[in-house]
Amino acid sequence: MSDQKIIKVGVIGAGRIGKIHAENLATRVPGVVVAAIADVNLEAARELAAKLHVETVYSDYKKIMEDKSIDAVAICSSTDTHADLIIEAANAGKHVFCEKPVDHSLAKIDKAIDAVKKAGVQCQIGFNRRFDPNFKKLRDLVQGGKIGDLQILRITSRDPAPPPAEYVKLSGGMFLDMTIHDFDMARYLSGSEVEEVYAAGGVMVDPAIGAAGDIDTAIITLKFANGAIGTIDNCRKAVYGYDQRAEVFGSGGMAATANNTANTSVYSNADGVTSEKPLYFFLERYMESFVAEMREFITAIRENTPTPVNVLDGRKPVVIAMAAKRSLQENRPVKLSEIE
Amino acid sequence: MSDQKIIKVGVIGAGRIGKIHAENLATRVPGVVVAAIADVNLEAARELAAKLHVETVYSDYKKIMEDKSIDAVAICSSTDTHADLIIEAANAGKHVFCEKPVDHSLAKIDKAIDAVKKAGVQCQIGFNRRFDPNFKKLRDLVQGGKIGDLQILRITSRDPAPPPAEYVKLSGGMFLDMTIHDFDMARYLSGSEVEEVYAAGGVMVDPAIGAAGDIDTAIITLKFANGAIGTIDNCRKAVYGYDQRAEVFGSGGMAATANNTANTSVYSNADGVTSEKPLYFFLERYMESFVAEMREFITAIRENTPTPVNVLDGRKPVVIAMAAKRSLQENRPVKLSEIE
Amino acid sequence: MSDQKIIKVGVIGAGRIGKIHAENLATRVPGVVVAAIADVNLEAARELAAKLHVETVYSDYKKIMEDKSIDAVAICSSTDTHADLIIEAANAGKHVFCEKPVDHSLAKIDKAIDAVKKAGVQCQIGFNRRFDPNFKKLRDLVQGGKIGDLQILRITSRDPAPPPAEYVKLSGGMFLDMTIHDFDMARYLSGSEVEEVYAAGGVMVDPAIGAAGDIDTAIITLKFANGAIGTIDNCRKAVYGYDQRAEVFGSGGMAATANNTANTSVYSNADGVTSEKPLYFFLERYMESFVAEMREFITAIRENTPTPVNVLDGRKPVVIAMAAKRSLQENRPVKLSEIE
Amino acid sequence: MSDQKIIKVGVIGAGRIGKIHAENLATRVPGVVVAAIADVNLEAARELAAKLHVETVYSDYKKIMEDKSIDAVAICSSTDTHADLIIEAANAGKHVFCEKPVDHSLAKIDKAIDAVKKAGVQCQIGFNRRFDPNFKKLRDLVQGGKIGDLQILRITSRDPAPPPAEYVKLSGGMFLDMTIHDFDMARYLSGSEVEEVYAAGGVMVDPAIGAAGDIDTAIITLKFANGAIGTIDNCRKAVYGYDQRAEVFGSGGMAATANNTANTSVYSNADGVTSEKPLYFFLERYMESFVAEMREFITAIRENTPTPVNVLDGRKPVVIAMAAKRSLQENRPVKLSEIE
Repeated sequence: MSDQKIIKVGVIGAGRIGKIHAENLATRVPGVVVAAIADVNLEAARELAAKLHVETVYSDYKKIMEDKSIDAVAICSSTDTHADLIIEAANAGKHVFCEKPVDHSLAKIDKAIDAVKKAGVQCQIGFNRRFDPNFKKLRDLVQGGKIGDLQILRITSRDPAPPPAEYVKLSGGMFLDMTIHDFDMARYLSGSEVEEVYAAGGVMVDPAIGAAGDIDTAIITLKFANGAIGTIDNCRKAVYGYDQRAEVFGSGGMAATANNTANTSVYSNADGVTSEKPLYFFLERYMESFVAEMREFITAIRENTPTPVNVLDGRKPVVIAMAAKRSLQENRPVKLSEIE
Repeated sequence: MSDQKIIKVGVIGAGRIGKIHAENLATRVPGVVVAAIADVNLEAARELAAKLHVETVYSDYKKIMEDKSIDAVAICSSTDTHADLIIEAANAGKHVFCEKPVDHSLAKIDKAIDAVKKAGVQCQIGFNRRFDPNFKKLRDLVQGGKIGDLQILRITSRDPAPPPAEYVKLSGGMFLDMTIHDFDMARYLSGSEVEEVYAAGGVMVDPAIGAAGDIDTAIITLKFANGAIGTIDNCRKAVYGYDQRAEVFGSGGMAATANNTANTSVYSNADGVTSEKPLYFFLERYMESFVAEMREFITAIRENTPTPVNVLDGRKPVVIAMAAKRSLQENRPVKLSEIE
Repeated sequence: MSDQKIIKVGVIGAGRIGKIHAENLATRVPGVVVAAIADVNLEAARELAAKLHVETVYSDYKKIMEDKSIDAVAICSSTDTHADLIIEAANAGKHVFCEKPVDHSLAKIDKAIDAVKKAGVQCQIGFNRRFDPNFKKLRDLVQGGKIGDLQILRITSRDPAPPPAEYVKLSGGMFLDMTIHDFDMARYLSGSEVEEVYAAGGVMVDPAIGAAGDIDTAIITLKFANGAIGTIDNCRKAVYGYDQRAEVFGSGGMAATANNTANTSVYSNADGVTSEKPLYFFLERYMESFVAEMREFITAIRENTPTPVNVLDGRKPVVIAMAAKRSLQENRPVKLSEIE
Repeated sequence: MSDQKIIKVGVIGAGRIGKIHAENLATRVPGVVVAAIADVNLEAARELAAKLHVETVYSDYKKIMEDKSIDAVAICSSTDTHADLIIEAANAGKHVFCEKPVDHSLAKIDKAIDAVKKAGVQCQIGFNRRFDPNFKKLRDLVQGGKIGDLQILRITSRDPAPPPAEYVKLSGGMFLDMTIHDFDMARYLSGSEVEEVYAAGGVMVDPAIGAAGDIDTAIITLKFANGAIGTIDNCRKAVYGYDQRAEVFGSGGMAATANNTANTSVYSNADGVTSEKPLYFFLERYMESFVAEMREFITAIRENTPTPVNVLDGRKPVVIAMAAKRSLQENRPVKLSEIE
């Protein structure tokens, strides 16, 4: 790799997810230099930079946009800034990695899509679960023909603990905030587009979530363009931890994943046979996928190949989420074409 | 048990399921004598009787109804005769074990229910899966409070091979013929009544099934009276065998069952790690449950306690199946109250 | 099967294992009639006979030997009578099924072997574990070449609770009483003869067992004629139940079995993930194997093919057990040729 | 951590394991700076240093010993240099992390032990498997009393592919080269010392290994000071990958670990049910344990607490390996006291 161009990345946002991406870029993605870190909280940027041997920090992200030596940006700021930053970066000719969701407004997303297209830059959205070895294996089996014609898709996605009601109010609702991952996973695993959804759900975990106008438990039925059908079940609280499983079934066979655990031990005594709970939450469960998605982003830049999750892939799950929301409100199946 | 009354049972129907019940009653249920076997095919009755040391055979089942020494009948004849035979047996003062489904007509089922009620006899319907140790354990966990408030129920039920289209035409459709087991299981596991269903499905296995006016693959969403939601997925053909799993999830925990296999061996070589497929079909998979349901039927007679699956339990899944059928046809959620 | 000869079997001994074999022969093995049951406790014989529709009972087993219409005997009496009864039955021209162990004396076993050989009758010893689907699968994989050249064999065999010290005194010691099953299994799985053993062990469960001159925990190393090596571990008490596993490893792959459980449920809550304990003891765990061994015995008689466990197979594990005992006493590897 | 002293580490050896430790120290262990890297192959040191932002490289490790600002060294050079480098580092007042094995000579090991003791520095030996979550959990269960009195210990340790015969000649033999990990694991899991061993084994994988005077397959029986017994089985080649399992059994219960896999997917089709093979070899399987051992080493230095694997722990498995070797040669149990 000694004769390969080093990719210089500017990281915007030094919060929780910014720290993860910056550290992964600096230490676990070959051929990359974190050239600068920007955060309105300059102290946060400085601390992160010191840890990672990064020399340049800014409180104003625009300095990163202006630095012509920087090849790409990683947008790790709050959701409401994503679309604008994608546009600015694209206009500055920089490749873009942007955290999900792109935005809650289709109009804003479409502007970002246009900007990316016009600039001809790479743009990857942070649907990291696609890079998890469990789900990737299911996808590979589907793509490799081992499942035959896909007939039934099942996704279980349950969080270990609900967010505070304050968060829920700003989240756009469970479908846009939590299920959006599963909508992306449904597209990824099936290799087909969702055409219609039916959502059933309710408030079973925390009345405050209901008071905030949202639900915390749901089952969503999906109909795909290729004729397959799917079901997603969600809950904001599973007392045994983060429950992340999927299953694909078709004419050629079936494949399913189990949860990951901290170790494989099984303990047997007079009371029963006990094994480990699932890894607690997304930081434990999906850490390796954050590394993998960044490696693929850098590879796409270097080799000028399509990114594995492009900006259109960032838009589709938002549409599905909107349809699910309407389905729940009106208790009827909703076609995605109604949303567009 | 030496001073216990021996229960004398007459078996009506010496076909596949009649043979199973007669043999189980004769050899694996203590305190029972098979007093007579009736079948219009007298030779079939004779052969079965010889094998089981049963002395009396009839071609006309009415002889069993007239025999005052017989305490109970096991109705193993074709579905269209079930309701009438229940009524005749009840009128003759005999306890009744009847294979599922009771009938495809709610009116006929209601007449049978009336007859049983008036006669004050026991009546058990053959939903044998309730007696399977896997599902029974889930039920016990729910009833014992280990799941807390039930939130999500999941049932997967897939057959190894589709029936011939000829059979499909007479079957009443997949929901009445196959999913009816899962509708019963949903009631059994949840301990609650289904209030509304939404069914999505299609013809993905065999076009002849479609030509016969039926589907072969489905996902059904259930809403329960207690607020829980559920999902059932069905397919007429799973190439890896009979797939029979369930999962209950609630505020206190989650429990799930796996498929049963012929042995526990795991073989590892350079190609991978291989374990056994699920037991092929219902005879292999549920044989022990046929014994267990009969034991409980006899116990209910002897101790005059309620049967574990009564004739009303035979009616409810028929209503759910009818609602599912309508939901599929009209692509909308259907309340059970619409069917009644 | 209507034109097949019915095999008439006399059962000697109506105790625990006699009841199992008699019931299986009467109800679960096709083409067999239990012609008579003998027990010095005539009442026990009568009770069993009544349950199974058997008309003839004796207090003196010799009546069975004298009955020329009886084709075979099942010897289910106490161990010290086994060898003599085999000889008597063989001399009377009857096929023999005999419970294990044949005897604790090689000289007596050899007389029984001679008698069987001279009479030309079938003789099967009750090493029922060979008929268990788990172990049979391992054997099939070895025989089918899937393991390649066998290199390592591992057997774990632990009882749920120790026998009383009184029993231990008469048992011949743990190797002859308990490990003898594993010695047979080692021969069965490997398809090779044991040539040398080294035993380590001690009293870790119950000092009364030590006071009775025996041990309750052991690890035995085996060297096979084909060059493979093996290890058996035993304990008289596993608090989680009956632990019965095996593993075969070779140049082509590895296969291992897990314990059987009452159901496949897995329960997850805040405390952990819990599954079922192994089936409690041999009656629960190996019931189907008792049926299977009897079916194969009857088939061998009817088709005049070799029995799957012959009387020589009953002798070999006794020799291995004796070598293991000497190895433990002298703390050195002992060749089987030293015992002969 | 801002007021914590940064620990400066010099890495000696930039080969395979040196790269791993250097990278982990530089990027995944907080509060550490890799101050210098030394390798006789200066180019290797330079390349590694460049990647990790390390400014100082040497061809002569003595420069590291002389640098008073360096707190600790990580000895990653060839085995024959370990003991001398430990002594030099200790004499220079530096804490020592040293790869296993310390040496093949007890006399040289004892000199290193003396030097460490006299200098009062920390010394940790790289038995990384102790830091693997699977085995650590077993240890915790034993230490926490969950196993009760330990009775039986089982370790399976099989490599995916044998080393070349050339390597075998210099390796000290399988017991010193490969089983030494399992001997350490036996001490770690049991919390007791091995007192006697009996080894059976042979050449079953590669005749060239036999020609080099070594074996490739073995079963070793262990007797512990606390009365427990144990069995280790080894093979240089398992066609399905790296097989690393352990089991502890005692009066209170049993705990066992399974292999780790790349993902949890299970694929079912008409041919069977297939899951992933074990992770291929030690780099994949134990990568996290290399990070963990280094974190604990640095913590021990910073907090002046005992290292989790001290230099005496490096000596014990060598003695056990020597006893095993003699046992195999003389086909008899060998007490460790014979070796000392």
